[in-house]
This record gives sequence, structure tokens and C-alpha cells, in this order.
Amino acid sequence: MLDTAFVEVANRMADAAGEILRKAYRQPLTIDHKADASPVTQVDREVESALRALIEKHFPGHGIIGEEFGNVRESSPYQWVLDPIDGTHAFIAGTPTFTTLIALAYEGVPVLGVIDQPITKERWVGVAGEKTVYRKSPHPNLLPEGEGALIPSPPGRGQGEGKTLAQATLATTAMKYFTADEAAIFTKLQTQCANVIFGGDGYLYAKLASGEIDLVIEAGLKPYDFCALKPVVEGAGGVISDWNGKPVTIASGGSIIAAANKQLHAEALALLCQ
Amino acid sequence: MLDTAFVEVANRMADAAGEILRKAYRQPLTIDHKADASPVTQVDREVESALRALIEKHFPGHGIIGEEFGNVRESSPYQWVLDPIDGTHAFIAGTPTFTTLIALAYEGVPVLGVIDQPITKERWVGVAGEKTVYRKSPHPNLLPEGEGALIPSPPGRGQGEGKTLAQATLATTAMKYFTADEAAIFTKLQTQCANVIFGGDGYLYAKLASGEIDLVIEAGLKPYDFCALKPVVEGAGGVISDWNGKPVTIASGGSIIAAANKQLHAEALALLCQ
Repeated sequence: MLDTAFVEVANRMADAAGEILRKAYRQPLTIDHKADASPVTQVDREVESALRALIEKHFPGHGIIGEEFGNVRESSPYQWVLDPIDGTHAFIAGTPTFTTLIALAYEGVPVLGVIDQPITKERWVGVAGEKTVYRKSPHPNLLPEGEGALIPSPPGRGQGEGKTLAQATLATTAMKYFTADEAAIFTKLQTQCANVIFGGDGYLYAKLASGEIDLVIEAGLKPYDFCALKPVVEGAGGVISDWNGKPVTIASGGSIIAAANKQLHAEALALLCQ
Repeated sequence: MLDTAFVEVANRMADAAGEILRKAYRQPLTIDHKADASPVTQVDREVESALRALIEKHFPGHGIIGEEFGNVRESSPYQWVLDPIDGTHAFIAGTPTFTTLIALAYEGVPVLGVIDQPITKERWVGVAGEKTVYRKSPHPNLLPEGEGALIPSPPGRGQGEGKTLAQATLATTAMKYFTADEAAIFTKLQTQCANVIFGGDGYLYAKLASGEIDLVIEAGLKPYDFCALKPVVEGAGGVISDWNGKPVTIASGGSIIAAANKQLHAEALALLCQ
């Protein structure tokens, strides 16, 4: 049983991130580029600083792995893994599909994950061995600021369970993250699915947890991109692994597959491993 | 000067579509597939029926070109061009980036365009020769149902004007809509831009009109995908054409480029025409 203080602080971190992101959304931005050519804004850095300040205050002995400011206390068994804005591309373009990803890993295994979308005010919180909880979208009954209790992750539209590849909605952020070989595999797989969507980053896995998407396949991810996803997906009854079917740990490579059920995971994995 | 009754009915059509779409959003769906393998739901058909009913009531002599139910009165100089759900992929996946597209073409030239996103309650209305008007997103001050006056399209975040390719946010819905040659051109172009996003369909052009995206490049579009875009983009000061630089008409091929300003359009077009 995970210390509830960890979950409480993780929620407070997501609150703090959301407050900054709602103010900055669709406002003028300074866009820089990192060594890998991916864009970064002053808002990414501001959010990560706020998250780090809360960890330093509450858990000063824990390690931190953050997208923007690197690693501290790498020998601690507890590691917070942070992506202040997952989907910076979407944030820059003013599309509400970016998220803040907050994970806590214990001895390399993600045991707590938060996926927070601050504009639609949706939040998913996953804890190892427990059911994922979910704060409902403001639609259709818009939530006033700060309201919205966390509820058990819904079965979504009831399409996930028992669904096969031919009935599935498949998603990935962009083809450009695949190598040529990976892109060929994905393209083959997509012809066997009912529906394919592009764009979404970590938000896609949250939507999988809510039964709206059935299969997410990505490559080239970093630990801060995928650690938070594991507890959320697993706590909602989904399956998440790397492309070899191995469990997701902080040391996983960046090729990740998540599926709404075991059968779908097995079907897709068989195609990925060919 | 366009008859204001046309604009009024177009707004009423978008209202009717939004009402249906808000009820159906994230609810169980029946997904079918069309001859081109693209998905279609009962909601696409329900919305188009509602739009057609309003045209029949108010303008019984006008033609209609709709994605789901084909053409009527093709010899009329007035043609309504309808896409009940542009971005059905996104609608199915519960992502609020699909739109309803409503256009009126006069002698083949789109003179009125509406792009409506019913979940965020954003709406863009373009009329030939006039400034595009825009109903602001409920964020951060959430709009109660039915409120939100139309205002002149904002200059967005002030990034569009004078922006060059190297500073631009480029967008397209998905690489899969390009031929291999087109994909190669797009991939080359994307390396010269500051930011690239995927997913979005017609919503991308609305966001261009609001200064959030600078360049949209797509191929394989149909008249109901692109007719509504022209008045919205042009009325906001943007430039839209086919890949040969020719004006968009109901008879255009499906390769479309929209840019936030003339210079950017010229820069991108030069690369597309190589």
C-alpha cells in the first residue's frame, strides 16, 4: 500500500502545474529548441520548477528526474519522474491535448502516475495495485475551478473489453517518432484497425484508461514520457509494456505499447515482434 | 455584400449540429466504414440530416453537397457544402478537435464559411470581403450554454504577422493522407519550421485564423473538407490556395496550403512546387 502522502503531494503538484498552464495557455510564448530539436518554452521550465519545489519541500530525500532540469539524488530508491508539459507541440499550438506527467518510481518501478490536462480539467491518478481514479471532464457540465472529485476510472464507452484489433481505435502522436522500420510496422497495423488518430502524446494513454482509445503504439519515448502512464493504464484494467512485451520500468527503452485488454495487446504485440 | 440571412441560417445550422454533437460526444457509437475505408458514425448522418433540413426550409432552391448524402440541385448557382463531422477519427476517440464545416459557394466560389467546435464552443465565421468573426473559447472563463457573442477574429498571439518559415508552427492532420512524393516534400518542409503538430483537420485552419498555427499543408481533401476554410482564413488576413498557388474553388483539387501571411505562403509554396 502506497503512502497516501505521496498521492496527496502528487495531486498538489498537478494543481500547481495546472494553475501556471491555464494562465499561459494561448498567450505569447518564447520558443527555444533543445539539442534534439524539440521545442521548449519558458512555461515548461516554470512548471517543472514548481513541481521540484514541492518535492524538495515534502520529500527532500527523494530523487528527481525531470525533462528540463536533469537528475538529482540518483541513488534514492524513490525517484519522481516529471514531464511539466508532455506535448509541448500541442501546448504551443493552443490545442488542449498536452498534459503534465508526474510519476513516482520505487526501485525502478513506477508505482504512482498522474496524467493531468489542465484546460479540460481532466485528471487520471494511478497507484500500483489500485483502481485508477479519474476527474471527469468539465463537459458537458462545466466544472468551476478546483471542483470535481476523483472517481474510479469509468469503463468508458464499454468498447474496450473483449475488443479485437479489427474493432479498435489505434493512436500514436506522430509518424516522425518512428524509424523507417517501425513506421512500416505501424502502417501495416493501422490497416487492420477500425480507426486511427494522430496527435495526443500522454493524453492518449489517459483516454485509453477511460475506454475511448483501444491501442496506443509509440517509439522514441523517454522515462518522463512513459513512467506516469503505467500505473494509470494498469489501474484501469489495461495492459502496457515495451514492444518486446516486457514490463515498463524506469529503465525501459522508449518503445511502448498500451492496450485496452490482454487479447488486443497480444494481437498487436505479435505484429510488432514480426 | 452577402445576404445576412445566409449568415444567420449558417449560424443556426452550426447551433443545431452542436446540440447533437454535444449529446453524442464520448457516448457509445456505431462505427461503419465507407468505400474509402474512412470511418463514419450514425452521428455524422444525424448531423447532416439536421443541416439539410434547415437548408430545405430556408433556401429550397439552393444546391447541397454533403459528405454523407451526396448532391442535390447541382445546377443552382448557390451550393451549400457540408461536412457534419470533419475529423470523425477525433470525434470517435473523444478528442475535441473535430469540427462541423458549413460553406456556401456562389458560382463555385466559397463566399461563406463556418468552422464550429461544439465541445470547446469555439466558432469561426468567414464571409467574402469581411473580417472573420470568432466566438471565443470558454477557456478560461467558461461559457454557459448558448452564450458567447461573435467578435472580430483576434490577431491571436501576434505571432503570425511577419513570421518566417523558421519561426512557424506547421500542422497537418496525418502523414497517411500524402502520397510518397508529397510526404517527402512535407518532411523536408517540416525540418525548416520551428514546431510541427499532427491531428486537427479543419480545426487547424480555424486556429490559423486565430494566430495559433502559422501554416497548414494537406492533401487528399474533398470540397466539403476545404470550402468552409477559405472565407475564414482570408477574412482573418491569412492566405489559402492549392499547392499550385491557385485560388480555392469548389472544383479545386484536394491539395491545400494555408498560411498566416503572404511571405510565409510564398516561402512554403516555393518548396511545394519544386
